[in-house]
Amino acid sequence: MGVMRVAVQGATGYTALELLRILLRHPQAELTVATSRSETGLLSEVHPSLTGRSDVRMSQLSSEEIAEQADVCFCCLPHVASMESIPHLLTAGLKVVDLSADYRLRDPGVYEQWYGHVHTDPTRLGTTIYGLPELYREQIPSQQLVANPGCYTSTSILALAPLLKAGMIEPKGIIIDAKSGVSGAGRTPKLGTLYSECNESLSAYGVGNHRHTPEIEQVLSDVSNSKVEVLFTPHLIPMDRGILATIYATPTHPVTTADVTSVLREHYAREPFVRVVEHLPRTKDVAHTNYCDITARVVRGRILIFAVLDNLIKGAAGVAVQNFNLMCGFDESTGLVV
Amino acid sequence: MGVMRVAVQGATGYTALELLRILLRHPQAELTVATSRSETGLLSEVHPSLTGRSDVRMSQLSSEEIAEQADVCFCCLPHVASMESIPHLLTAGLKVVDLSADYRLRDPGVYEQWYGHVHTDPTRLGTTIYGLPELYREQIPSQQLVANPGCYTSTSILALAPLLKAGMIEPKGIIIDAKSGVSGAGRTPKLGTLYSECNESLSAYGVGNHRHTPEIEQVLSDVSNSKVEVLFTPHLIPMDRGILATIYATPTHPVTTADVTSVLREHYAREPFVRVVEHLPRTKDVAHTNYCDITARVVRGRILIFAVLDNLIKGAAGVAVQNFNLMCGFDESTGLVV
Amino acid sequence: MGVMRVAVQGATGYTALELLRILLRHPQAELTVATSRSETGLLSEVHPSLTGRSDVRMSQLSSEEIAEQADVCFCCLPHVASMESIPHLLTAGLKVVDLSADYRLRDPGVYEQWYGHVHTDPTRLGTTIYGLPELYREQIPSQQLVANPGCYTSTSILALAPLLKAGMIEPKGIIIDAKSGVSGAGRTPKLGTLYSECNESLSAYGVGNHRHTPEIEQVLSDVSNSKVEVLFTPHLIPMDRGILATIYATPTHPVTTADVTSVLREHYAREPFVRVVEHLPRTKDVAHTNYCDITARVVRGRILIFAVLDNLIKGAAGVAVQNFNLMCGFDESTGLVV
Amino acid sequence: MGVMRVAVQGATGYTALELLRILLRHPQAELTVATSRSETGLLSEVHPSLTGRSDVRMSQLSSEEIAEQADVCFCCLPHVASMESIPHLLTAGLKVVDLSADYRLRDPGVYEQWYGHVHTDPTRLGTTIYGLPELYREQIPSQQLVANPGCYTSTSILALAPLLKAGMIEPKGIIIDAKSGVSGAGRTPKLGTLYSECNESLSAYGVGNHRHTPEIEQVLSDVSNSKVEVLFTPHLIPMDRGILATIYATPTHPVTTADVTSVLREHYAREPFVRVVEHLPRTKDVAHTNYCDITARVVRGRILIFAVLDNLIKGAAGVAVQNFNLMCGFDESTGLVV
Repeated sequence: MGVMRVAVQGATGYTALELLRILLRHPQAELTVATSRSETGLLSEVHPSLTGRSDVRMSQLSSEEIAEQADVCFCCLPHVASMESIPHLLTAGLKVVDLSADYRLRDPGVYEQWYGHVHTDPTRLGTTIYGLPELYREQIPSQQLVANPGCYTSTSILALAPLLKAGMIEPKGIIIDAKSGVSGAGRTPKLGTLYSECNESLSAYGVGNHRHTPEIEQVLSDVSNSKVEVLFTPHLIPMDRGILATIYATPTHPVTTADVTSVLREHYAREPFVRVVEHLPRTKDVAHTNYCDITARVVRGRILIFAVLDNLIKGAAGVAVQNFNLMCGFDESTGLVV
Repeated sequence: MGVMRVAVQGATGYTALELLRILLRHPQAELTVATSRSETGLLSEVHPSLTGRSDVRMSQLSSEEIAEQADVCFCCLPHVASMESIPHLLTAGLKVVDLSADYRLRDPGVYEQWYGHVHTDPTRLGTTIYGLPELYREQIPSQQLVANPGCYTSTSILALAPLLKAGMIEPKGIIIDAKSGVSGAGRTPKLGTLYSECNESLSAYGVGNHRHTPEIEQVLSDVSNSKVEVLFTPHLIPMDRGILATIYATPTHPVTTADVTSVLREHYAREPFVRVVEHLPRTKDVAHTNYCDITARVVRGRILIFAVLDNLIKGAAGVAVQNFNLMCGFDESTGLVV
Repeated sequence: MGVMRVAVQGATGYTALELLRILLRHPQAELTVATSRSETGLLSEVHPSLTGRSDVRMSQLSSEEIAEQADVCFCCLPHVASMESIPHLLTAGLKVVDLSADYRLRDPGVYEQWYGHVHTDPTRLGTTIYGLPELYREQIPSQQLVANPGCYTSTSILALAPLLKAGMIEPKGIIIDAKSGVSGAGRTPKLGTLYSECNESLSAYGVGNHRHTPEIEQVLSDVSNSKVEVLFTPHLIPMDRGILATIYATPTHPVTTADVTSVLREHYAREPFVRVVEHLPRTKDVAHTNYCDITARVVRGRILIFAVLDNLIKGAAGVAVQNFNLMCGFDESTGLVV
Repeated sequence: MGVMRVAVQGATGYTALELLRILLRHPQAELTVATSRSETGLLSEVHPSLTGRSDVRMSQLSSEEIAEQADVCFCCLPHVASMESIPHLLTAGLKVVDLSADYRLRDPGVYEQWYGHVHTDPTRLGTTIYGLPELYREQIPSQQLVANPGCYTSTSILALAPLLKAGMIEPKGIIIDAKSGVSGAGRTPKLGTLYSECNESLSAYGVGNHRHTPEIEQVLSDVSNSKVEVLFTPHLIPMDRGILATIYATPTHPVTTADVTSVLREHYAREPFVRVVEHLPRTKDVAHTNYCDITARVVRGRILIFAVLDNLIKGAAGVAVQNFNLMCGFDESTGLVV
């Protein structure tokens, strides 16, 4: 396999920056296109950390123009904008990894309920593969379009899927108390993400209505062949990077910490980016990497699972490159172990 | 009532500093003694923020000497050291607010199990009032010794007590996912509380064995006349100040957010320092104050309660001054509203 | 002296919040008015930390209406908006403390050069007293309008004025390397003050063109009766509160650290809010207080001065209340020592 | 060129961790040894972020034993310990990159004055090459021992050397106002580097006596063939990573910003890791990279230079690998561009 020419559509955000960084060091990717609706000029004018790293300039290319210069397109547009663009990218012949939420849910009604928009590409919505390689590695290589997972979603699914598959925990009543750094909220200026609002502060948000809820439930229900229900409560933490999901589940039968750990270890024995650890994992230990660290404890008859990852990498740009590698026939880890 | 002369025993820690700050502005307190096992010199040599605020020097006074110069002693020693000192302070005639954990639990066996030391003052252990004014306001004024609550404990109890009292939630299976700033870990240098370990990081700790667990259960069991069991999971957050407890409880019968809020509002209608709010509270909004802000939500059949306070103030030094005010016959809020 | 009714015009920003906090605890101030161009509702709807503290609602009152309900108005509007409002407030009979930059400079030409607007009240501009009580305590009580100083400005002036007055340093070539927390940049959402931009980052900004430059030079030139020139370089620091000015000056004759310290100590011997210290001061030690801590060192023939204060309090709201106290005949420290 | 077997002596600190990370991804390095005086067990037991990355265990090998298993040794011991070990490493035939300060200064008297110890290897002290490739690239390849530069030192020298060489600035009276994240202070628990001391705080330290002063002066004097004198003032910033040096120099003749920038650009035109930029550089833009970003401004007749780098990478582990690459005949950038 040679080198693929890659485009990044919507290249100004924080996830896009991480993606650009990975692609610029990827030995089998050549960045040829970066689009932006608002910016022109070198990538480094928006992302000074890329100074000297690339000659690519931000552009407003059409799908057809992108397809002339690239083989694969990473779509980093916001939801809605994404589903307006992607059909054109696909028609133009590009392989596409969509980092938005637009193709993650299967049911257009559920999409409309949670995102407040009628889905304009419902046929593809129902058939797009969910791009979590740890679950769908077999299907991904043959896809033209893959829906890259949400950051909270990946954390939660990686922690829970093995235990649900093993029938070790009840599919209902799962509590996910999730904590995320601020970069997950994006680069658009808002009062709530100002430094002086977030720093030295801590609170929950989106209680009962965060959009990653149906995504978690859909994938975990698929995995377990039963209707999974989670209570998902995100919190904003004064740090740049990282998610910690603290998960409380009810075992289906009496188990020990060793039992649970054993299921996790076996499940992830050959995974390059999931590490089952004994200590309580820290977000710092996975920051700026593509790893997800997981541990479990049984306390007072409940199973607690602690999973951490970097929301911008394993939670977004890193897994996108895993998908890219799989779709292009490259080794899945290429460009991701540093 | 006039002015009380007050001593702070163990005046070098972060809680002691907050206490000194409050006492120095308290119109009916005169700071006369501050002891330290390691320091001498002006308070400001250890706590530069107190420069120019006090002429008191750190000393190694005996209980009798403290009693000659003070009417009330705040004991900020570590556990064990505290129970070695307090009997002498009491014998010398001082009123004492103990900020350690030594007199909080009622059962010497439970103390030994969780703290790894035989309790040397078991009689008092069984009879000391737990100094949470919102629960024990009536008993506190007549006490010579009050056991000041732990920071996680106060947060959890203030959130849960009204609902348990009202029989609205099941006493078992309560999940407390608590998050604290780093100052709660104290001023003694340790690897785990270095800036470079905590900053840009997040993890759980003390899972299944944090010492505030039996304290929470004891008080809530008393309040509800039933055996309360909690699953308490603390997390370390990269910020100085503040605790957020995210609590998941099972209602005893179907309820709405309005129902739960109504119980909380009614319970705390006359409390000077507990504010039942509608928004999801932020630690920032109570930092450097003696307030505890609480809200509730019903999501998918569960009751969620969110409570925040400043761990060093409402979680330690501020409630200690509430106790002091009550024990001395002062208005409970004196010195605490700024 | 009794109680003054006070208004805060432009009550939504961070400085206004600190001011509201101080006024709500001030024994001789009664907050009666808070205006906002965009908000209505209780103060606590914008500032949740004020929940339960005040019944005042945000309003859009005219100057005349403010004057009916208040005796003194703190103007927290942005520059330009401030000079449009203040003449009306004064005509309506209010005493005014202006926290904007609009009345700080004496020369309309200099104002226009640095702020890019023609000054619309040039007469008052030339005669308004600069509200730094440490310099102009005698003049402030008789004023109807006082121009509250900038935060960097106060830090720099308090550090330098005694040495310039004493003729100990050269008035030219003074280097002020200043560092500020992010709250100084205000509450309006901007890319540059997002958490994810400022956290774990550090840079200079406004090099050679920060608007506090002419303000520092004007006041120090007045103080020293010679043309003072400073090279002022601000930096943005990942923290909420605090300014540190590191100042490099050339002595007019050989001096020691003790000589410089002695001049500072003598100058500030009776000041309630300036503390000359021996240690290198930390912003943390003055955060949330009205103190400015200063120290000096002589190194390799240069005088270094280090001054810290809380940019929102001693750098804005706190000094505004000092001015208010002086203008109303109250003790200057009232409400400010906590 | 094949693969070199490498040892890290003193593998528990923060710099060592960064070095291990780079070496583990370096295509021409094989990590075979990691020593520690206190730890045994896998690297990941001390550094959880390395879980799954290496089978190497911490050991207490002698120099001879290290030499049996490795070709090159990175010495990350503290000063004094380093000069006790290095002669043995060299005798055993290892190439050595010393990350301590022990071989940086040329004069044993100066070493003793600043470090308080008699140097025990004075002959080598006088002849060891200072491992800043941007200055000594020609000499490094032939060395058996290279003295890796200090973090503040590299920042300062990279900013100043081109201008001194060009005779554009006066060699005396240079002011370096430097700001560093906390990781530079190391992993040994101390009060001053506790989270609760550093967070939300800012202060200068080591004023007039920081040990990087003579190092900066020695190298810059060599470069410029004149006695350079700097006033070096470090500050501790509440962030993990990064140094910003704000430098004030006096031009030898009138110059513009364009003139200064032109000298810098020309000097660094072919450097892989020094980027002369137009914007004011942020530490965030070089964090976790081996880049040093530099810009210049002329303001009021002075030259200001702003230089940023990651103190643990370009300031320590990254430049160490540049030296390693040069000493082994590898491309200087190998393993360093991610």
